[in-house]
Amino acid sequence: MINSGDTAFIIICTAMVMLMTPAVGLFYGGMVRKKSIISMIAIAFIAFAIVCIQWVLFGYSLAFGTDIGGFIGGLDYVGLSGVGLDGDGIPDILFMVFQMVFAGLTLAILTSGFAERVKLSAFILFGLLWTTLVYDPLAHWAWGGGWASQLGALDFAGGTVVHISSGFGALAAALVIGKRLGFGQDSMEPSNIPLTLLGGALLWFGWFGFNAGSELAADGIAANAFVVTIVAASAGALAWMGASWIYGKPSSLGMISGAIAGLVAITPACGFVDSISAIFIGIIAGLICYGALLFRVRKGLDESLDAWAIHGVGGFWGAIATGIFCIAAIGGVDGLIYGNVNQFIIQTIDAFAAMAYAFIVTYILALVVDKTIGLRVDEDEEYVGLDISQHGESIHT
Amino acid sequence: MINSGDTAFIIICTAMVMLMTPAVGLFYGGMVRKKSIISMIAIAFIAFAIVCIQWVLFGYSLAFGTDIGGFIGGLDYVGLSGVGLDGDGIPDILFMVFQMVFAGLTLAILTSGFAERVKLSAFILFGLLWTTLVYDPLAHWAWGGGWASQLGALDFAGGTVVHISSGFGALAAALVIGKRLGFGQDSMEPSNIPLTLLGGALLWFGWFGFNAGSELAADGIAANAFVVTIVAASAGALAWMGASWIYGKPSSLGMISGAIAGLVAITPACGFVDSISAIFIGIIAGLICYGALLFRVRKGLDESLDAWAIHGVGGFWGAIATGIFCIAAIGGVDGLIYGNVNQFIIQTIDAFAAMAYAFIVTYILALVVDKTIGLRVDEDEEYVGLDISQHGESIHT
Amino acid sequence: MINSGDTAFIIICTAMVMLMTPAVGLFYGGMVRKKSIISMIAIAFIAFAIVCIQWVLFGYSLAFGTDIGGFIGGLDYVGLSGVGLDGDGIPDILFMVFQMVFAGLTLAILTSGFAERVKLSAFILFGLLWTTLVYDPLAHWAWGGGWASQLGALDFAGGTVVHISSGFGALAAALVIGKRLGFGQDSMEPSNIPLTLLGGALLWFGWFGFNAGSELAADGIAANAFVVTIVAASAGALAWMGASWIYGKPSSLGMISGAIAGLVAITPACGFVDSISAIFIGIIAGLICYGALLFRVRKGLDESLDAWAIHGVGGFWGAIATGIFCIAAIGGVDGLIYGNVNQFIIQTIDAFAAMAYAFIVTYILALVVDKTIGLRVDEDEEYVGLDISQHGESIHT
Repeated sequence: MINSGDTAFIIICTAMVMLMTPAVGLFYGGMVRKKSIISMIAIAFIAFAIVCIQWVLFGYSLAFGTDIGGFIGGLDYVGLSGVGLDGDGIPDILFMVFQMVFAGLTLAILTSGFAERVKLSAFILFGLLWTTLVYDPLAHWAWGGGWASQLGALDFAGGTVVHISSGFGALAAALVIGKRLGFGQDSMEPSNIPLTLLGGALLWFGWFGFNAGSELAADGIAANAFVVTIVAASAGALAWMGASWIYGKPSSLGMISGAIAGLVAITPACGFVDSISAIFIGIIAGLICYGALLFRVRKGLDESLDAWAIHGVGGFWGAIATGIFCIAAIGGVDGLIYGNVNQFIIQTIDAFAAMAYAFIVTYILALVVDKTIGLRVDEDEEYVGLDISQHGESIHT
Repeated sequence: MINSGDTAFIIICTAMVMLMTPAVGLFYGGMVRKKSIISMIAIAFIAFAIVCIQWVLFGYSLAFGTDIGGFIGGLDYVGLSGVGLDGDGIPDILFMVFQMVFAGLTLAILTSGFAERVKLSAFILFGLLWTTLVYDPLAHWAWGGGWASQLGALDFAGGTVVHISSGFGALAAALVIGKRLGFGQDSMEPSNIPLTLLGGALLWFGWFGFNAGSELAADGIAANAFVVTIVAASAGALAWMGASWIYGKPSSLGMISGAIAGLVAITPACGFVDSISAIFIGIIAGLICYGALLFRVRKGLDESLDAWAIHGVGGFWGAIATGIFCIAAIGGVDGLIYGNVNQFIIQTIDAFAAMAYAFIVTYILALVVDKTIGLRVDEDEEYVGLDISQHGESIHT
Repeated sequence: MINSGDTAFIIICTAMVMLMTPAVGLFYGGMVRKKSIISMIAIAFIAFAIVCIQWVLFGYSLAFGTDIGGFIGGLDYVGLSGVGLDGDGIPDILFMVFQMVFAGLTLAILTSGFAERVKLSAFILFGLLWTTLVYDPLAHWAWGGGWASQLGALDFAGGTVVHISSGFGALAAALVIGKRLGFGQDSMEPSNIPLTLLGGALLWFGWFGFNAGSELAADGIAANAFVVTIVAASAGALAWMGASWIYGKPSSLGMISGAIAGLVAITPACGFVDSISAIFIGIIAGLICYGALLFRVRKGLDESLDAWAIHGVGGFWGAIATGIFCIAAIGGVDGLIYGNVNQFIIQTIDAFAAMAYAFIVTYILALVVDKTIGLRVDEDEEYVGLDISQHGESIHT
């Protein structure tokens, strides 16, 4: 039977998660040079639109259809056949669309690795392949009855599925497409930090739908997920800001990046941990993601907008942290600090598997697209910027 | 009796729809020249504020009071008398305010036809008249027990009431007020596309409240409305982008316009169609609204921000499409593709009636305002821009 | 027992109120000079983050722990001990986080008094002290069982706690820190009004969660709170705009300031008054807050972004107005216009007490911070702007 409170909750949460996709576009858009702001925002919308259609046609079925060997779902739900308006607590079709907005967002996060140099047509092809061959299997593993869920791995709202996959995917994408022209020489300062802070604000807002909504019901666990989400974000923001203050000025970009790092890390854990643990998870997320960014910069890697450092590393930490801090009183499972080594080991296996799969398959897909239709724009198109070269548009203010 | 789940749902949906009004301002603001950005956003807020007070004083009563001859509601609810805190499922006063935010939004959409040249005082007078003499009757026809609902016309969330009315209203307004100075000669490129994309994102977000909320309950139909809304938007975005790609570069403005076109077209249909139909409705919306824009440009019409092409034509298509694609398994009525010609004919009548009424009455009202207090600013006020001439403000970045 | 509809409602409302904090940052950011936009937005986030951690560790307990002498709460809930996932209607932990986002927002509003000249480290120290010694007691007085609630003072959503406290706090802060360099001589025109309007839109949106959510249930009272909120905002916007039109051009800043004034004034009243009263409350709020702004300018006070004029004076008016317009049919208590002088007197006492306490304690705290680590940046840091001097960032568009 349909529960109106739960249904109201998940409908609104789905809308909030949907908003996160353009929010990623704004967040990224403010960090690139002025000549590519429009393209960064547009590509997030486009990622969403293509994933949405893919999801209706077959993506949902691959992720949530009858399990095939623990790896992928069957074709039961192709074209949403059999996905009805009734369900248990919430309508089946609502569960489907709640999952859809996660899939769209994940691809948008990955665009960090392609910033200011990807060909739009190549991105569309890549995006379709990536969602089908990386996202859908990972969603199946964690939530569709695949091997990770069979193993008992905990991923409340998408640490592996969304963040490890997009973060390590972005790293692979950046390695294949190569650095931006002039990277390390020309200034590539963020052009519009207020836009990034606005995007960050909308991301934070939407994240409540993302994390609390993953309970699929409006209850105490959802409320707890909300609380630990807000706490980890705040702790992450302060930790990154504090750490960067030691070496220089505390940038607003560091502050908001720390908040996102905290949000990422709490994502898999939010149904299983309490508020005090969330403070630790957030602080550590802020510190290690900041460290990862410094490492990335030192290595001269142009994973341009740090999806790897924040979503990849933060998601990895979150998956592990779930195994450390989870407590039976909340989610039914105790973690390492409560003496349960087993869950910690399971989480580690799950995190490594997701990381390896996402990185390797993304690398191959990017290579395939590059060798066929070419992943990157021409040099002159890159110099003039993607706004004009890909969209024929520019900002006149 | 009040259902807390449904009430929670509609309260939040109302807030989301309210957000669409400033979102229209941002969407439009990014498309005008820098000298008129503030005025475009401000006028959306002002439209909302005057409609809100009108709605409380008598607008709600005209739309939802006891039917008078199928055309208009009586004065039962003047000053919200008799609109209480209890109700059936949701409080009566909540239904009232859910309808209020639709009315405010509709006037804001229409400002497209007045962009960069309307006198603020004239707009306020026009807006009051328009809401009273165009919006309120149309709302009564479709939802307040008027002739269209008696005929069996289907308009789930406002294809005729909101989109045909504002779209064809904008066309009439643009014809009366005339082209912007220099139209067709000077460059009138959009000045701030990121602002438009942000507005588009908030519109898309709010639209879920608009469409799913129109069920007035958190149930399977609301969930389905959500799904077809997201699907039609994505299909519309890809269709317009694809079509424009044939002739040149795929602009982000085309992409987001296609999304809005899909959202408009699915609006009347979203309680009656399934996801696969939504893909078709969205694709066709993207294509015909793009075609309408090309037609508008070729004709040299300065319906400046394309409310006619997107909301008018898209809303018209949506009303017809409802009669084509509706399916009894969802909303209780079959459409043309399921062999029911009757509903298709009803929808066509309804769409034509709304179009004719909105266009003609808007034309007359605009003319009356123009001949009395004058609709348009002076030439020098227009050259300097509405921000300075109407509001004494400008952007200093 | 947990009610899923109410829980869904308050979770989403909490997210909406959280969004108000960065919205204040955007609202303020657009009103300062370009060199300080980032700092204004960043400080709102930072205020939120520190209050969030404070709230979890001990702030919630100070506000809502067992009453000590009517003044402050005990340490029962330190570290959220005893704040569980179950509760009456909504989970206890959800009530806690709903209150948390109010606390964060309030500190962000107060930053108006520090605009473009506060040292970041000093603000962090001040913010911690202020939340602990001003906000937490005031929240306890009104909602935690303190003397004001014992007296029967009505404050539905925070007229005293949030608005009087932050508004008069901002005034005290501004007096201690002193005027910006060049104030009254150099132009300090708002640099980015669209950003302010965007912030205002998000504030308005979030305010529905703030006011309607304060019912803590999705029912008729929540719906009524929603309605009077939207009405008072619209009335305030039109009143301020109209009044300023008499003396010059109706600025969009005046319009949105009037909307915020209406929102502030209806905040304490929204659970107790009807829609027609809301029109009066909103109109008067728009007029007196506009008057307060003119007074502030004439006095040469640099309470830079008018938190005092709008939140302080508007909140004061709202507290009094609650005693004038409240009606037993809605909230169980009649006000002055229904012949009950008593409630009017109680409201007046409450408003004066909150005002005096907030002003005096804020003044002392600001003084203490100033005399110890120094509240203000150096002259050259102020000339170059807080973006570069405090955050090492700037806008490149």
